[in-house]
Amino acid sequence: MHGARDSLPLADAPGRADDPPRPLLVVAVGGNALSAPQRADDPGLVAERRAAAQTGAELAALAARGYRLLVVHGNGPQVGRLLRADPDLGLLDVHVAQTQGELGYLLAAAFEQASREPMAALVTRVEVDAADPRGHDPEKPVGAVLAQDPGGAARRTPDGAGWRRVVPSPWPRAVRELPVIARMLGDCHVIAGGGGGVPVTAAGLPVAGVVDKDRVAALLAIRLDAAGLVIGTDVAGVYRDFGGPAPTLLRTLDVSACRALLESGALPAGSMGPKVAAALDFVLATGRPAAIGGLGELGRVWSGSAGTRVLPQSDSRNA
Amino acid sequence: MHGARDSLPLADAPGRADDPPRPLLVVAVGGNALSAPQRADDPGLVAERRAAAQTGAELAALAARGYRLLVVHGNGPQVGRLLRADPDLGLLDVHVAQTQGELGYLLAAAFEQASREPMAALVTRVEVDAADPRGHDPEKPVGAVLAQDPGGAARRTPDGAGWRRVVPSPWPRAVRELPVIARMLGDCHVIAGGGGGVPVTAAGLPVAGVVDKDRVAALLAIRLDAAGLVIGTDVAGVYRDFGGPAPTLLRTLDVSACRALLESGALPAGSMGPKVAAALDFVLATGRPAAIGGLGELGRVWSGSAGTRVLPQSDSRNA
Repeated sequence: MHGARDSLPLADAPGRADDPPRPLLVVAVGGNALSAPQRADDPGLVAERRAAAQTGAELAALAARGYRLLVVHGNGPQVGRLLRADPDLGLLDVHVAQTQGELGYLLAAAFEQASREPMAALVTRVEVDAADPRGHDPEKPVGAVLAQDPGGAARRTPDGAGWRRVVPSPWPRAVRELPVIARMLGDCHVIAGGGGGVPVTAAGLPVAGVVDKDRVAALLAIRLDAAGLVIGTDVAGVYRDFGGPAPTLLRTLDVSACRALLESGALPAGSMGPKVAAALDFVLATGRPAAIGGLGELGRVWSGSAGTRVLPQSDSRNA
Repeated sequence: MHGARDSLPLADAPGRADDPPRPLLVVAVGGNALSAPQRADDPGLVAERRAAAQTGAELAALAARGYRLLVVHGNGPQVGRLLRADPDLGLLDVHVAQTQGELGYLLAAAFEQASREPMAALVTRVEVDAADPRGHDPEKPVGAVLAQDPGGAARRTPDGAGWRRVVPSPWPRAVRELPVIARMLGDCHVIAGGGGGVPVTAAGLPVAGVVDKDRVAALLAIRLDAAGLVIGTDVAGVYRDFGGPAPTLLRTLDVSACRALLESGALPAGSMGPKVAAALDFVLATGRPAAIGGLGELGRVWSGSAGTRVLPQSDSRNA
């Protein structure tokens, strides 16, 4: 999907001359994992503050190993709350931006409670290809499952006993704020690309849709020449026969195994499929490792004692 | 209010060696001016997109004169919409952060539609003094005028035929992301301190309250050694006898006239008073000019052909 041609190595970003550059780890954090189950009388944000505190502490432990972190968070439940008042989804871009403020603030504040180092959150737009057929074909459900057909101009699809609205999910081509992110990483840990970023055309105009945040994390990791990509979610890793009678956690995937898994169609399209595809993109472009596993054990996932590691062909023979 | 001791000159921020540094202009933009009047069936955000487009074009015209811009937007109507679902205001900090994403995105995107230069928005926290008595005394109304006493834990006050909730408004002491902002300004125009920033203690914990965005703009302008401070609002400038039978636009104010106006109590406490105080702070700390005037004519306000200029004593004799 991406070439390394346009990569912007972190070493190009200015830093204090006497500090050796720290290896960059790009960490994708699922929006579901940041949102505890809601009660009817719970506005959701209260539980989210607690979840952000846990994730912030976990990210701080990763940074303490000497890494510079770039965090890309999801926003599914958060944007869903805001979309209740937007039946036509005509303000989807603005609501994604709101969740970037919300989760960027909560995660940065929580990180700093557990670390002496600063973290800052950047509002981020992601350019998508207006000619990408995925930019026209609604496929990605957004917002809550609704008891009734919501009406309005938005496309929707039956979902179990209710309805969900669906929007296109075009692939990311460029992160508009990439030079700023590279610059910021010289000084602090950064949160960017939240919710996959606000999708825009190359001319900067809003695109009705949402971008997959794991693909944006991989794009950032490739362009910034990261040492690794870690994808944290609410599942312990990549499973063979997930949801079947005997699911098996796959501890290591090489490039061939990744491709076979993706082509088998066995991975859930809306969840683990894009994560494996994003990890594979990063590994192919950089020859460096990626890892997929549960929030709550990100450190062990990255070091290989939990979750699933995705490795280039040659390394995986020794893994 | 602020010493110049901790100032962080923009020249310290790295930039391309062959680009001379551009003079920094800090521009405060009122949240009311970014929110056109709402109809009952208007979610408000649609009108806001139009207003942001106008303001973005206006900011681009200022930048085209050779300035580097740091934009600090208000968020009164925007945070008011989000607070409808938060009767106790227990999530005020999160809602302020949401408006930073919302308006940061809209303004940056609008700016770039009118300029070839990039602008990026940073989620910002502002440290306030927990011992500041203004941090304990609710005085600042937030959210809409409510027809009935909203109940809940939040303090509220009668307002005309209804009620408004009120929160403390402590003064800003430090912008937590200041080094990041200085670094970003080497590369792009920046939006930061939106809604006055999310107020936190020196330890980074949330403070229940809102910070005046004009005071934060002045603090940023002082610490970043800005060439000027422009405060754009929905009024054409500072008036003598505002709201009285014969209001007079004051075209120039020197330090003594500013002090006299502030001490006279003639300026509205919730609107023009803090703007004049913020402008005075900047002029006293830097000896450089500030200006207050209407959004829609910011360029003329800054160059002195509209609005009110606030000048240091010596300059004002020649003004």
